Amino acid sequence: MAEKTWVRMVTAQTPTNIAVIKYWGKRDETLILPVNDSISVTLDPAHLCTTTTVAVSPSFDQDRMWLNGKEISLSGGRYQNCLREIRARACEVEDKEKGIKIAKKDWEKLHLHVASYNNFPTAAGLASSAAGFACLVFALAKLMNAKEDNSELSAIARQGSGSACRSLFGGFVKWIMGKAEDGSDSLAVQLVDEKHWDELVIIIAVVSSRQKETSSTTGMRDSVETSLLLQHRAKEVVPKRIKQMEEAIKNRDFGSFAQLTCADSNQFHAVCLDTSPPIFYMNDTSHRIISCVEKWNCSAGTPQVAYTFDAGPNAVLIAHNRKAATQLMQKLLFCFPPSSDADLNSYVIGDNSILKDAGIEDIKDVEALPPPPEIKDAQRCKGDVSYFICTKPGRGPAFLSDESQALLHPETGLPK
Amino acid sequence: MAEKTWVRMVTAQTPTNIAVIKYWGKRDETLILPVNDSISVTLDPAHLCTTTTVAVSPSFDQDRMWLNGKEISLSGGRYQNCLREIRARACEVEDKEKGIKIAKKDWEKLHLHVASYNNFPTAAGLASSAAGFACLVFALAKLMNAKEDNSELSAIARQGSGSACRSLFGGFVKWIMGKAEDGSDSLAVQLVDEKHWDELVIIIAVVSSRQKETSSTTGMRDSVETSLLLQHRAKEVVPKRIKQMEEAIKNRDFGSFAQLTCADSNQFHAVCLDTSPPIFYMNDTSHRIISCVEKWNCSAGTPQVAYTFDAGPNAVLIAHNRKAATQLMQKLLFCFPPSSDADLNSYVIGDNSILKDAGIEDIKDVEALPPPPEIKDAQRCKGDVSYFICTKPGRGPAFLSDESQALLHPETGLPK
Repeated sequence: MAEKTWVRMVTAQTPTNIAVIKYWGKRDETLILPVNDSISVTLDPAHLCTTTTVAVSPSFDQDRMWLNGKEISLSGGRYQNCLREIRARACEVEDKEKGIKIAKKDWEKLHLHVASYNNFPTAAGLASSAAGFACLVFALAKLMNAKEDNSELSAIARQGSGSACRSLFGGFVKWIMGKAEDGSDSLAVQLVDEKHWDELVIIIAVVSSRQKETSSTTGMRDSVETSLLLQHRAKEVVPKRIKQMEEAIKNRDFGSFAQLTCADSNQFHAVCLDTSPPIFYMNDTSHRIISCVEKWNCSAGTPQVAYTFDAGPNAVLIAHNRKAATQLMQKLLFCFPPSSDADLNSYVIGDNSILKDAGIEDIKDVEALPPPPEIKDAQRCKGDVSYFICTKPGRGPAFLSDESQALLHPETGLPK
Repeated sequence: MAEKTWVRMVTAQTPTNIAVIKYWGKRDETLILPVNDSISVTLDPAHLCTTTTVAVSPSFDQDRMWLNGKEISLSGGRYQNCLREIRARACEVEDKEKGIKIAKKDWEKLHLHVASYNNFPTAAGLASSAAGFACLVFALAKLMNAKEDNSELSAIARQGSGSACRSLFGGFVKWIMGKAEDGSDSLAVQLVDEKHWDELVIIIAVVSSRQKETSSTTGMRDSVETSLLLQHRAKEVVPKRIKQMEEAIKNRDFGSFAQLTCADSNQFHAVCLDTSPPIFYMNDTSHRIISCVEKWNCSAGTPQVAYTFDAGPNAVLIAHNRKAATQLMQKLLFCFPPSSDADLNSYVIGDNSILKDAGIEDIKDVEALPPPPEIKDAQRCKGDVSYFICTKPGRGPAFLSDESQALLHPETGLPK
């Protein structure tokens, strides 16, 4: 290459999200348009996020991507759709200091490098693709000086992974299903930011599983084709729930929020079960966690904790406040103690300051926990939970300006 | 008692049944009127039945009942409803040989003794109440010389336990939900007798479970009150399925029969999951059995086996014919071998001649079974199944005229 070369980079961090009114079923497979609206809560990126560095340089001879340090193919339709859509919105970029000038039309020829990293186990079934595609689109938009706002960008991220559109905002987010055939109005909007309801505490139980789950793409397609309950849910049940959930969030009405969240998670799994062949994402451990929460909520008279499960056995538990979360942690550690040789700090990760509130400093304190009084003959199931992550609702995507946090080398554009 | 005493007895045997289109939800709790029609197959009484002896004598001073040798109370509303209804239909009885003469009006004052015995474990969750109430009503009708036919009797048995009405006939049976407010048209009719489709083979997997299940009465009530999918199922889905199922049974169309049976079982459990709090009857073992059947049916290109689950984790597997049942047994024994110290003849009970067809004579043959080729990385889960019962569709209720089979003493009217 004759001309002096340069590398322009942007690094961003984008959170994952968990739906409290579920997305299950597409009306358009290619554009990823859903059969109903959905609502999610964004999780604190400190504990669960994707960091992505995107780079452009005239020295790159093809688009390349590395995920968690390993090169992966960008040839899939979902990546191609996102790259095409964002390139179409690229604008002129000028950085006099570095001597970079990219005209709008140059973007069609320039190649990109992408490096992405999840700060949580990809295999744990924690919606890494949502954070991943949101981060990719968010970072590329900045790199390419695209003028679109986050809602407009969400409609692009949606074409990578449906739930990714909800990761473009913090707090509580609604994915409006839209009506347009081209999907332009199927995008995410923020309902409230993360400060609106900041007493909520989220504990994720990563559940051990022997089985490989059905991918959500395949499962959703099978449900749309075979479940006789899915359309009724999408058309009759969800629209009302969306309104009720918006109201509950606006009013910080935890009772309604918990009732709707649990009911909608269960109904999503009911639709999975009504699919042919049936899809089971929850296992006996998931059922036991639900039973533990239901019994407590019932005996307390008013909901203390909401539960929701995505396409896997992991429980996402949303506690009303720190006090409820502390009690929840005690109950969970009684029912699902770590293996004898486990280190408590690797069994309860994230913001585990809650352990201190719960009076738990080491394994001996776990062993000494009393059984939850509302559970008759409470059993202790060692090893059924791999670990817990303590977190909270969090903010939306952000840029990392500190170049030391970039995942690509500023001169070569290759992974550090 | 001054007058010469006598005991008049009748002994009957009544089968259990398993629904292939499920009954879940009452529109009237007292009369036990369902929200939809259901269809069942009656199971061979040789392997699963209730035997009941009913007796009347002027020497009895109260109604009494013994279940599996233990006296139980008859004061419950369901027993009282059945006793009241059948007494209202009692007719004059004369047995000159024994010197018995009972006028129609005498039945109001005479007391009854009832002894009932299940030839299978009551605790195994195998619908013992269905066979029990059917047998009680069937035997009492004979004792009291009631003129009602089995359909009319089914409407009485229904008031003891909904599904009991379907145990008044052999073969395939439909419980018509009816429209009348007094429930008089909510009764069972035989679709075809047990000879119509006699190649079917039924294998029941009695699944080990750590948990006490929600009773179907409570579960059903909760579903009616809270599930937003139940009414849609009852009004939109089931009526069509009933017609399709009747057609499949008439034509011995196993493909349609299996598809409908599996889908309806799954949808019933989906409605349970959509209930608040959610009800889980199936556990991980149930899921693995389903997965095993689904993979085989898929790889075979045409369904070989149908599965259906009632309010518990036990699988009822209906094989197309003896050949399919033999292969099923091999696959099941591979995936769910008995504990090392188990006796094969107590692990596979009922008509276990199928073991011979499968080339299995002892535990070593089980250990040597090859993994089902259609299941990748097939695991062997010892102890997850308690035992298997091999049976087939069977006949309806029958009287046992041999007095040696009576459960009550012919002179005292007390349990033998």
